[in-house]
This record gives sequence, structure tokens and C-alpha cells, in this order.
Amino acid sequence: MLGSLVFAGGMRLEQALDVVGLDGATVGDELVRIGYAGPQPCPVARAPHAFVELHIEQGPVLDAAGTTIGAVTGVQGISWQELTIVGQANHAGTTPMSMRHDSLYAAAEITRFVRLLAGELGGHQVATVGRVTVEPNLVNVVPATAAMTIDLRNTDETALERAETRLAAFCDDVAVREGVTIVIRRLARFAPVAFDLEVVDLVDDTARRLGLSVMRLPAGAGHDAQMLARICPAGMVFIPSVAGISHNPAEHTAPADLEAGANVLLQVLLSLAS
Amino acid sequence: MLGSLVFAGGMRLEQALDVVGLDGATVGDELVRIGYAGPQPCPVARAPHAFVELHIEQGPVLDAAGTTIGAVTGVQGISWQELTIVGQANHAGTTPMSMRHDSLYAAAEITRFVRLLAGELGGHQVATVGRVTVEPNLVNVVPATAAMTIDLRNTDETALERAETRLAAFCDDVAVREGVTIVIRRLARFAPVAFDLEVVDLVDDTARRLGLSVMRLPAGAGHDAQMLARICPAGMVFIPSVAGISHNPAEHTAPADLEAGANVLLQVLLSLAS
Repeated sequence: MLGSLVFAGGMRLEQALDVVGLDGATVGDELVRIGYAGPQPCPVARAPHAFVELHIEQGPVLDAAGTTIGAVTGVQGISWQELTIVGQANHAGTTPMSMRHDSLYAAAEITRFVRLLAGELGGHQVATVGRVTVEPNLVNVVPATAAMTIDLRNTDETALERAETRLAAFCDDVAVREGVTIVIRRLARFAPVAFDLEVVDLVDDTARRLGLSVMRLPAGAGHDAQMLARICPAGMVFIPSVAGISHNPAEHTAPADLEAGANVLLQVLLSLAS
Repeated sequence: MLGSLVFAGGMRLEQALDVVGLDGATVGDELVRIGYAGPQPCPVARAPHAFVELHIEQGPVLDAAGTTIGAVTGVQGISWQELTIVGQANHAGTTPMSMRHDSLYAAAEITRFVRLLAGELGGHQVATVGRVTVEPNLVNVVPATAAMTIDLRNTDETALERAETRLAAFCDDVAVREGVTIVIRRLARFAPVAFDLEVVDLVDDTARRLGLSVMRLPAGAGHDAQMLARICPAGMVFIPSVAGISHNPAEHTAPADLEAGANVLLQVLLSLAS
């Protein structure tokens, strides 16, 4: 996706070549080493006519629905926040419930709220508390501090902003009710990308014409097509991941689905090129 | 408390002398080394006439109430449990809310329930989730497993059992609702101890007679008097801990409160001895 971002003019070439990997190597050196430092100008001088990407879903929706093709409508916006909740360590036996400032209880309330929020906003809103770290983390001590992350994603920027606002307001409420302080730090924020409606329609129509089952859905992970969408009509074709498993040796997509996806991609590209 | 337990016949002397400390020394060797391996038979041949213990509260109740003396009614029973919740790790972006098996969300529901349970049972019930450990604990992954501890305490054994039963039933509900498995392991369990009502009354009356403010309350931590209560009338006198701080260099009790406590203890012992 880094290459696509540079190709589409979203990051300077020199900046991308200088990116250092976890092993200490730079992107530029590695491209030379493997023979991929090609001659194409970046950013691209002339935008492509269109860009269509075929990918496994990396999620469970198509597999669960028994549907072969996904006409991808866009890529979700992402909001990552870290909350640090500071209460007061207290003896779990001698401190009455009414005199506690329990950071972990506040974290639990927020975790529950985040789930309710996703249900209330509906649509493709997802909300996840993935990380919680507690201090002192002992069976008989009311927790002094709890740090937690919140991952909010939505295909609609206005809805995503509403989710962030509602969350902040709830944190304020909890902080007052529990007598704790909550510091919110933004870890990452990307706006949603909507794919070109004509490309989405074309993927959908092409699948039907080929006699394949098809549904529209957003991508929950990042993809090259979202970078190309900056400069040309772009879209994606999804095929099922068995049980939604991805980034895992158990990842699998049936050969028939791979073939179906390749055929949809071919016919869509032929249509766009004609 | 170990010595008191042996003295009262609750543990064999040899077993207690063989207890090994974190530094590798045994209790028996250390008693000889510091000259405390006395000649008294253990368990005691003849039970004491009564036992009264003066202690700082190690909690915030007396300090918050501005009360000088606590007539301790007993020691809370303790139930420590560890819950291991196993769900399924999933991508936080691509997994719809309805298809998740989120172990941390289940832990949050249980944390909230435990608070509600304490409020509902009322009285001196306290309930604490002190420890939570999450795997893989990453911002963008629905947590696969969450291990948590629950500390329940009550002065009433029936109520404590009710709390345990209600908690187990709630865990069953959450496991079904969220599609997770919850394994419950008992870490520790002690029944409550009620102090001799005549001793409690005597502490209360004596404080009043000395012109001191007094209230009845249970002890939330363990004390020698609860071991002696096995073999003789026992009770305790509490004095305030400033801000409830204990087991901490900042622990403080005002000199006037220390004196008041000593005078109540003296007068109670004189009354019991007369």
C-alpha cells in the first residue's frame, strides 16, 4: 500500500524510500536488492484509466453468507484511540463500594458502551476494545490505572465522527460518576474511502452476468485500491475467506472461488477498457 | 495470623514451623534465630478467657465518618475466583459485530455485573475485579482470551454463597450470549467470622462511656482475633487510618486516636477480667 500511496501522489518518493523496516533495512535499498526499483516516475505522470483490485475478503461475511463475489463499496475509515484511566488503588476488602475510584470498572463501562454504540449507529460501524492493561493487576486491590485502546471504523465519515463524539461524552460521564480521570490520545485516524459507483455497479453486474452470487460490502482492512481512488475510478472484487481467517497459515479460499474472482476481474477490466 | 491459627488449633505446629518464606528461611528457624521460639504449648492447653485486639482499620470508613472507635463485628468471608474466558481472535475491521466472540467484552459484562451484584446484595458485600490479562492484547484484534479475578467478601456466609451462585449463573448467560467458554477456578475461600456479641457490645459501650464516637463495622482484612474466635470470646477495636491508607509508607493514625484506642482496649480488658 506504501507504493500505491506514492504512485497516487499521497507521499513523496524520497520519504517512502527512506522508510526503515523492523530489521533496519530501508525500502529503497530493499527494492534495489530484489530488483524492483523500476523506472516508472512516482507520482505517476498520467493517472490510470481505472484501477480494479481482486482480493480475498480477510473477513467472514461472504463465507457466512455463502456468496461468491463481493462488490466492494469502499474502505472503512479508522479511528484508533488510547484511553488512560486513573483511579485510586484501594484494598478490595476494606474499601466500601461507594468509596472506590475503580479504573478497571470505568474501563468495563466504556467497553460495554462501545458495543452499544456500534449497535446504535448500525450499518457497517464496528467498535473494538482490543487492549487493556491494568495496574497493579492484583486480585485484592482495586485497580489504580487501566489503559485501553478503542478501534472505531465506519464507511461514513459523519457517522465515524459521531461515534468519536459520543464516546468522548460517555468518558466524561464515567469520569465524573467514578471519580477517575480519563486522558484520551489519538493513535491513528483515516477517513473512509468510497469507491467509484460505476466500478462498483460494474463488478456487481458482471458477477450476475457470469451467474455468480454477489453482494455489496465495504472493506474492513486497508488496500491498494483506496490509494488509487485518489487519482482514478477504482474498485475491488472480493472472494470468500473460509471462516474469515486471514494473516494466518490456516487462511484458505476455495479454487473455484479464486477462478470466479479472476473471471469477474477479467470481464470488468475488459468492459472498462472497451 | 499463622501463630494465632496454630495457637487456636487450626493448624499443626510442625506444619507451621516448616512454612518457607520467600527468602527460603523456615518459620521455625527464624523463631529460634530471633529468640521467639517460646515454651508455650501449641495448640494452647487451656483456652484464654477472652481475646481483644486493637488495630488500625486499614480502610477509610472511620476516617470518612469522623468516628474515633470501631466496634468490630467480625471478619468478612472471602471468595477468590479466577475466570478464564476463551473467545476467538478476529480482525477488528473485517469482523461484523454480530459474528464476534469477544472475550474482553464478556469480561467487561462480568465486571459490570459484579458491581451491580454488590449493590443488590447490599450490606457489607464488596466485589472487586482486580486483575485482567488479555490475549493477544492488540488494538486491531478482537481479544481471543481474557483472564480475570473476582474478589467477593461478605460478613454473612449465606449472602456470600448467594453472590457466588449469582455470579456463576451470570457467567453461564454471558458465555451463551457471546459464544465464549468460561472456566472458573477457585483461588481461595474463607468463611466469615462473627465476633462474640458480648465483646462487641462491650467495646461499643466502653467507647461511649469514655465519651468517644463509635460505630460498628466488619473487618475487611484478616486478623489474629478471627483465629482466636475459634476457642474463646473474641473481638476487636478499630481506630481510623487517615484516608484509609494501609500497607504503605503514607499510613498514618493520629496520636489522639492511638491513645483513645489504647484506653478502650484497657477498659474492655478490665471489664472482661473483673
